[in-house]
Amino acid sequence: MKPSLYIATALMLASTSGFAQRPPAISSPDVHADNTVTFKYYSRTAQKVSLSGEFLSGNHAMTKDTSGIWSITVGPVKPDIYPYAFVVDSVPVADPNNTYIFANERFKRSIVDIPGNTPLVHALQKVPHGKVSYRLYPSKTLGTTRQLLVYTPPGFNPAGKTKYPVLYLIHGGSDTEETWTKVGRANFIADNLIAQKKAVPMIIVMPYGNVRPAPMPDFTKEVMQDIIPFIEANYPVLADPQHRAVAGFSVGGGQTLNIGLTNTSKFAYVSSYAPYTQTEEFQKNFGATYAPNAEQVNKQLKLFTISVGTDDFLYESVKQNIAMFTAKGIRLRSDIVPGGHTWMNCKQYLATTLQGIFK
Amino acid sequence: MKPSLYIATALMLASTSGFAQRPPAISSPDVHADNTVTFKYYSRTAQKVSLSGEFLSGNHAMTKDTSGIWSITVGPVKPDIYPYAFVVDSVPVADPNNTYIFANERFKRSIVDIPGNTPLVHALQKVPHGKVSYRLYPSKTLGTTRQLLVYTPPGFNPAGKTKYPVLYLIHGGSDTEETWTKVGRANFIADNLIAQKKAVPMIIVMPYGNVRPAPMPDFTKEVMQDIIPFIEANYPVLADPQHRAVAGFSVGGGQTLNIGLTNTSKFAYVSSYAPYTQTEEFQKNFGATYAPNAEQVNKQLKLFTISVGTDDFLYESVKQNIAMFTAKGIRLRSDIVPGGHTWMNCKQYLATTLQGIFK
Repeated sequence: MKPSLYIATALMLASTSGFAQRPPAISSPDVHADNTVTFKYYSRTAQKVSLSGEFLSGNHAMTKDTSGIWSITVGPVKPDIYPYAFVVDSVPVADPNNTYIFANERFKRSIVDIPGNTPLVHALQKVPHGKVSYRLYPSKTLGTTRQLLVYTPPGFNPAGKTKYPVLYLIHGGSDTEETWTKVGRANFIADNLIAQKKAVPMIIVMPYGNVRPAPMPDFTKEVMQDIIPFIEANYPVLADPQHRAVAGFSVGGGQTLNIGLTNTSKFAYVSSYAPYTQTEEFQKNFGATYAPNAEQVNKQLKLFTISVGTDDFLYESVKQNIAMFTAKGIRLRSDIVPGGHTWMNCKQYLATTLQGIFK
Repeated sequence: MKPSLYIATALMLASTSGFAQRPPAISSPDVHADNTVTFKYYSRTAQKVSLSGEFLSGNHAMTKDTSGIWSITVGPVKPDIYPYAFVVDSVPVADPNNTYIFANERFKRSIVDIPGNTPLVHALQKVPHGKVSYRLYPSKTLGTTRQLLVYTPPGFNPAGKTKYPVLYLIHGGSDTEETWTKVGRANFIADNLIAQKKAVPMIIVMPYGNVRPAPMPDFTKEVMQDIIPFIEANYPVLADPQHRAVAGFSVGGGQTLNIGLTNTSKFAYVSSYAPYTQTEEFQKNFGATYAPNAEQVNKQLKLFTISVGTDDFLYESVKQNIAMFTAKGIRLRSDIVPGGHTWMNCKQYLATTLQGIFK
């Protein structure tokens, strides 16, 4: 018998009860040296298969060969990491042959990494690497055990004399505690910027922010009463406001404003990325809590930034927010950049934040 | 405007370029107190949607309501964690609304956890929790940087005086380094057994085993020359054979035999779960390396086990392997249990191993 992992795999998969025999092994996506990318999907029964990706506008039809493999080559694509999916007849599916999947509660999409010739800030580079730990912690606020991820930088020694600043980093509305590493590559971005001495060594805590029914005040309570105490009890951290930052994207950007601006005595750095703030809850909190305190907010925050892309569907809303803060006398830096409400933009926002905090 | 995370989520998703507007928020799966489970999938265009799961035989048709939500309630199902998928017309898809996905390179399936009334060995229980760290390490064997997962037990202090035994734990043929935690719950199983004092505190290393083209000797080389040295340089481990174990499932069970039995001076414990051994490569290695050394193998191994389920498609093959080892005078314990080539069985195999090693 010919030695083959694929024989073993095919046998195993074929034997699994309740599942039809598996298709042949396919390599997808294949990223080529010229930044074109070939995507493949196997189906003998589909009438139409198309590719949908955040590097494309619209769906692009794929073509089928005689063995039932549908394929398409697109690009060259601008180097970055992008979500994509196939649409098989009318059914959206993640790429079965791609391990890398977008960590999310509402959809299943795959992600493709087009590295390009010059290493991007999120690339796995030959630098010292930190680690990402999955931790369980008791949430008294929510009465349950929850999971968060903790990035510790290269050379981190939990029992050493060095104490670290901490960034609390929150995902978007239907994302999970894994999205900032799996899609946002927060760990690689930190590794690279620390190696270049553009960022200081820090701990990055990535909690799970989808607290229902009230994601703003309830999550703020959980961060303040459960998450920060857990981190400060278990990691060598600098536990003063000058060494504590909060950042987040979309709904997490709204949560960031809620957490940071209702606790300016606890955070010196607040960075909100394309914040979603269109809830009565948020606006009520804003009016009651932040408005009277502009002078105090300005004094306590070393850096308050709001970032958004000009193609972001929240662009107008975020501009209104920025104007509102400014009108109330709150000092902030607005980072208006190209791009949409995407994780391509998130990586850039985070890279900017890491270079601006704890300095 | 009514405060709603779902509004935010729907807006965000609708705005993502290249993707059609998202369906309504759906809760799926819903596990009920009587161990029945309701699965739901949204499609207005599908002609037929069915459920396929490792707790069912065959595909079970789901029914559509007037809002386009297909559903089915099945069971009661025996408490365990099971893979499942929907088949939408002829397209297999993971559950879009379920975050928990089977970590695998060849398919996308979701997993459902039916906890039951009595906590199972893999359940999240109120016990001290270890942590799982994602580590990058340099592989000289493969000339690249790779990722592995490291479970450290509750109370672990990397700079403390306590040194730990290490289990190297390998996934199946198309799985990934995450499958033993995400599907196999190796960390919860260890937490629970350590809390009950049925297992000793240990480190569990879960590497990525899919080395091509030769998964047996090349991966053995990587484990011996890259992975073990990385762990022993970075963790407080007991670096003698009496405190080093290897275990693995399917192709990883074959790799376990290759790693353990070609290095009996390095491992006192070898536990192979439903090993896939039908390669010329494996049989050649077996004949050349292990056959002449039965006495030495018996002397060096404190425990050598092979586990398999009577419904496993490899059952006959594994029995032949056990008979071959026995005929050659190699002492081993065979654990023949009910069940198939599944991760339901894997969790039981691991629980047995953790209670038998380092004692």
